[in-house]
Amino acid sequence: MLKVAIIGGSGYTGVELLRLLEDHPYVKITAVTSERAKGKPVSSLFPHLKHCKLKFQSLNIKSITKKADLFFLCLPHKTSQDVVAKLYRAGKKIIDLSADYRLKNAAVYKKWYDTSHKYPALLKKAVYGLPELYSEKIKNAQIVANPGCYPTSALLGLAPIMKNPAVDINSIIVDSKSGVSGAGRNPALPFMFAEVSGSVKAYAITMHRHTPEIEQELSRLVGTKKKVQINFTPHLIPMDRGILSTIYVKLKKKVNLTDFLRIYKKFYANKPFVNLLEKEYPNTKAVMGTNSCDIAIFLDKRMNTLIIVSTIDNLLKGASGQAVQNMNIMYGFNETTGLMAAPVYP
Amino acid sequence: MLKVAIIGGSGYTGVELLRLLEDHPYVKITAVTSERAKGKPVSSLFPHLKHCKLKFQSLNIKSITKKADLFFLCLPHKTSQDVVAKLYRAGKKIIDLSADYRLKNAAVYKKWYDTSHKYPALLKKAVYGLPELYSEKIKNAQIVANPGCYPTSALLGLAPIMKNPAVDINSIIVDSKSGVSGAGRNPALPFMFAEVSGSVKAYAITMHRHTPEIEQELSRLVGTKKKVQINFTPHLIPMDRGILSTIYVKLKKKVNLTDFLRIYKKFYANKPFVNLLEKEYPNTKAVMGTNSCDIAIFLDKRMNTLIIVSTIDNLLKGASGQAVQNMNIMYGFNETTGLMAAPVYP
Amino acid sequence: MLKVAIIGGSGYTGVELLRLLEDHPYVKITAVTSERAKGKPVSSLFPHLKHCKLKFQSLNIKSITKKADLFFLCLPHKTSQDVVAKLYRAGKKIIDLSADYRLKNAAVYKKWYDTSHKYPALLKKAVYGLPELYSEKIKNAQIVANPGCYPTSALLGLAPIMKNPAVDINSIIVDSKSGVSGAGRNPALPFMFAEVSGSVKAYAITMHRHTPEIEQELSRLVGTKKKVQINFTPHLIPMDRGILSTIYVKLKKKVNLTDFLRIYKKFYANKPFVNLLEKEYPNTKAVMGTNSCDIAIFLDKRMNTLIIVSTIDNLLKGASGQAVQNMNIMYGFNETTGLMAAPVYP
Amino acid sequence: MLKVAIIGGSGYTGVELLRLLEDHPYVKITAVTSERAKGKPVSSLFPHLKHCKLKFQSLNIKSITKKADLFFLCLPHKTSQDVVAKLYRAGKKIIDLSADYRLKNAAVYKKWYDTSHKYPALLKKAVYGLPELYSEKIKNAQIVANPGCYPTSALLGLAPIMKNPAVDINSIIVDSKSGVSGAGRNPALPFMFAEVSGSVKAYAITMHRHTPEIEQELSRLVGTKKKVQINFTPHLIPMDRGILSTIYVKLKKKVNLTDFLRIYKKFYANKPFVNLLEKEYPNTKAVMGTNSCDIAIFLDKRMNTLIIVSTIDNLLKGASGQAVQNMNIMYGFNETTGLMAAPVYP
Repeated sequence: MLKVAIIGGSGYTGVELLRLLEDHPYVKITAVTSERAKGKPVSSLFPHLKHCKLKFQSLNIKSITKKADLFFLCLPHKTSQDVVAKLYRAGKKIIDLSADYRLKNAAVYKKWYDTSHKYPALLKKAVYGLPELYSEKIKNAQIVANPGCYPTSALLGLAPIMKNPAVDINSIIVDSKSGVSGAGRNPALPFMFAEVSGSVKAYAITMHRHTPEIEQELSRLVGTKKKVQINFTPHLIPMDRGILSTIYVKLKKKVNLTDFLRIYKKFYANKPFVNLLEKEYPNTKAVMGTNSCDIAIFLDKRMNTLIIVSTIDNLLKGASGQAVQNMNIMYGFNETTGLMAAPVYP
Repeated sequence: MLKVAIIGGSGYTGVELLRLLEDHPYVKITAVTSERAKGKPVSSLFPHLKHCKLKFQSLNIKSITKKADLFFLCLPHKTSQDVVAKLYRAGKKIIDLSADYRLKNAAVYKKWYDTSHKYPALLKKAVYGLPELYSEKIKNAQIVANPGCYPTSALLGLAPIMKNPAVDINSIIVDSKSGVSGAGRNPALPFMFAEVSGSVKAYAITMHRHTPEIEQELSRLVGTKKKVQINFTPHLIPMDRGILSTIYVKLKKKVNLTDFLRIYKKFYANKPFVNLLEKEYPNTKAVMGTNSCDIAIFLDKRMNTLIIVSTIDNLLKGASGQAVQNMNIMYGFNETTGLMAAPVYP
Repeated sequence: MLKVAIIGGSGYTGVELLRLLEDHPYVKITAVTSERAKGKPVSSLFPHLKHCKLKFQSLNIKSITKKADLFFLCLPHKTSQDVVAKLYRAGKKIIDLSADYRLKNAAVYKKWYDTSHKYPALLKKAVYGLPELYSEKIKNAQIVANPGCYPTSALLGLAPIMKNPAVDINSIIVDSKSGVSGAGRNPALPFMFAEVSGSVKAYAITMHRHTPEIEQELSRLVGTKKKVQINFTPHLIPMDRGILSTIYVKLKKKVNLTDFLRIYKKFYANKPFVNLLEKEYPNTKAVMGTNSCDIAIFLDKRMNTLIIVSTIDNLLKGASGQAVQNMNIMYGFNETTGLMAAPVYP
Repeated sequence: MLKVAIIGGSGYTGVELLRLLEDHPYVKITAVTSERAKGKPVSSLFPHLKHCKLKFQSLNIKSITKKADLFFLCLPHKTSQDVVAKLYRAGKKIIDLSADYRLKNAAVYKKWYDTSHKYPALLKKAVYGLPELYSEKIKNAQIVANPGCYPTSALLGLAPIMKNPAVDINSIIVDSKSGVSGAGRNPALPFMFAEVSGSVKAYAITMHRHTPEIEQELSRLVGTKKKVQINFTPHLIPMDRGILSTIYVKLKKKVNLTDFLRIYKKFYANKPFVNLLEKEYPNTKAVMGTNSCDIAIFLDKRMNTLIIVSTIDNLLKGASGQAVQNMNIMYGFNETTGLMAAPVYP
């Protein structure tokens, strides 16, 4: 049994990891930390996990290092930097769900996160944990930087065509709609029920920190020195979970939708979590509670624009589910182990 | 592998059975019928079941009888009568999720369902499928009448104390709050999003058909000739799933809450799906997606009234989950097989 | 024009007062205070009030006393005590939306609010501001204690029959369901969207502070020395606004529903905000945004129990709308002035 | 008093007209028709309009023609064609809320609505009822084609800059998010609560009928022979009301956001219902229940793209509120009469 620990386990991504890892056949959770909930049984904070026997403990790096081989970090951005570095030095494997090790370029990190990165050398060692793109690197990684929720939906929607000559890589617009759990579990007025109910709003326009993350990966997919820039506009939607990204890509020449669909199918041929829908519109409810990404593509012939719709559950394929998928790959388990339960509906 | 068929599989209870039985280790679904969806793949109607290979077919009793040993019936009340009778004569086992075989007394059935029961003799043979009360009878039953959602929440809340001398059995009030999936999947104005959102209402006051079902079982629990009568008032709540029943029981003498709690704990000592909460209020969200029933009891000393709060997921413990639990018992599987996945939150 | 000030105007009841009083033809708001929002324009916090020119200011009793004749207090319980007393001594009229002056008996206040009342003499002077019961006293009151939201729904449902000899006044159960705005606008985990969505729960069972308030007024309605005690159980529902109370009253003899309906109609004959529904079930959505209370009564003949369903908008008839109604009565305006706009639907 | 009639008054736009016109000081509703609700009092279908004394009647063109001077038509597309023509010939004024008279070109109508237009000559006479653009024409119109909900939000967001030389008029993408009331009041599975809750989906991609309507008006705003084409992608959101459109416009040269903001402010200087937000993000909840359109603009300097966010209440500024605004203009009332009540929040 693989021994794992969860650092920062009382938020929404932590609690999803607890749920998934408790049921995982090859894993044993040996510790879960939380400063605000230390000393409390997991089941007292999270009644839906009533069979969980774990207690939250305060984070003590020295003692926790001995307890596990793999560490999932659900810490706030910036806080994660040090913890990753310490565990790395102790020779441990790490899946970091924060944004701290996603950007390869420390200057870009500083620009978007308003703080310097203390471990630029480690940035190079971290592998961006999007298994549909980097499964080979993930296998041998010591640090996996688990992707952001919005980037996961955008990148899976765009990856198959970034090298396609018909695609105008400077024209991409990603309009994303997210449920409120993406904002975390800390109480704040904008996420109170009576504020969110009946409300759709765009936020962080031109400023969202997931923008450079999407751009970095799209640039790598294009593969040349040319840096891809996009517009990314996130929206808050009155629902618990789910992201739907509507992606607009200008085409430089006439294309055939069937050809493009074939490209997508080939690209995702052996990817168990990506589904190409052909006769239905993707819908956040159909992926809720799953590690799936549903994608459909449409061609606006009049505007010569490709429209890609991509849906995920922000807490699963957008966070904790993807983290477990990365673990499966790192340890040679079947990629889908512990991740295939069908979701409830409605 | 046990071969099972689902009759009427395109409603909410049918689709939950599909989800649960597809993942069940000892079961193979050999057929699923639906008149409105016949010919269509399950996955085309229900994208969340994208790995399901089954197609809906029209119901043909003769041919379907040969296909399975156990039949789950998700038919409307009244329609189920004949199908149960035919399968029974063919020697098949049946779990009927309709109300048609729940009431033992054909006259009571006629009074509340406005139609005669054509098979009063079969009523006697059917076992009321509440496993926490009747697991021994369920083991050997050929027809299991799967309980209604409201009755399940009410009966589990009341069963432990119906013989208690302090309880005034003529004083019981059951005030239930249910999500809209309880009304089924047929489109109708009162269940449209824009009508339900922001709306709480009581309905069917003094007239709901689950009233005689609760009364029949409470009377059996009391065990004397005296018939228990209750008030049952259901309410519709703007949420997908879940029932919370608040039950008021007048006490005939002073009691001690600790003593009552002990009675409940003892009664449910080996019942894996019933949880007694001591420090938290039951909450529909904590049982959503589970086969659990969470119960907490409170004593209003000033009014000498016991208040029992009982929560279930109406589509699981209130319907399809309970049906699978009954199947597990009928076939000697572990009672919890296929029913223990932790639910998502939030 | 009557000059009014709102003390504590940045919560949900304050902002409803701002909306209602800004449109009121005989009133001018001269000041609105808020400690957390001081210095900010009302319209910056509340974009739906974009035409409001007021700014929040810090509370300075001396200066504000000069600015208005009538003061609406939307302060937390306990904090309101002193402010009422100071304004009272300055000869001002006060409508206090807190609970501080609702209970006549300082000992009862201390028991339920865990603090002593510093002005027991003022308690006697305050008039309980339920206009359907006390409009004559309200006319001449200097202090009006605006009723709680739950008590308003319960008392309007029960008032017409408290003297009826068929009613067992010791049997009353009030099961109330409330939207989350009743919990106020301060961020807290239990009221976050992702926690509330899909969740119904009972809370404060046997302990809610509105219990003694309902009992005090029911006792006064009965009119004898005998104190009425009730069971009151509140529930939190995933919706913004609205309270539905389902009230169970045991009857001591056989009654006729038509007779009881006549009693209700007579009692509320000239009460413009109370509606007796005869062919529909009350529904919180139908009163949302109004100062109305919709009531329907039902007779459970088998249990000889009267069931009363009463719905209000907790922020209007349950708080700010009722406060404006009280003001209208105190100043001789038509009782409905500024309160009759039809609400939006759906 | 102006006598008005509502044809097709039992849907969501009809009922909003009833609400607004009942409170309008210069108007008397003399008739309201509905085939499905004929004979029933308005208040029995719509309890929130309990003070309304009207009854729904069946549509009889001859008799209704005599009853009013102005007719609001809330009929389905295609059905409206004939009724408009008959009322027109009778010399009546008409505000048609259907799409039948919005498109000037009968061939475009046929292409998008799959039916021929029987009255192409009348198409020329109809005035597109967007008051912020055409108030002069509306004053003297006999037929006003009330705009669609999506087009209203898109056009108000784009109108001020369509002639601006920096704007690439061939680059426009309109990504709209709408509440479910936009789909009307007829029961259908996709709009049931349990289907909509937790679900965001795009629909009618490249095919939505509001596309040619937006394009027609944008082309007129540009004013040259060149036809503007756009991409329009609508999304269904789990909320009752509201549209938020996020509009992406490629710029052909560097611009200054302040300059653009000035252009918007000037364009809407005397338009009482359009608000330019400078420090907050538009939010559907802030316009719910109002006839307002809140707009904010953002500049993505890296992509040289203007992002316009525009919010309306789809049933008010997107339908019935705009219809009343048109009526006010046609009859010389103040444009805001009956439309300025502040909305409830939360």
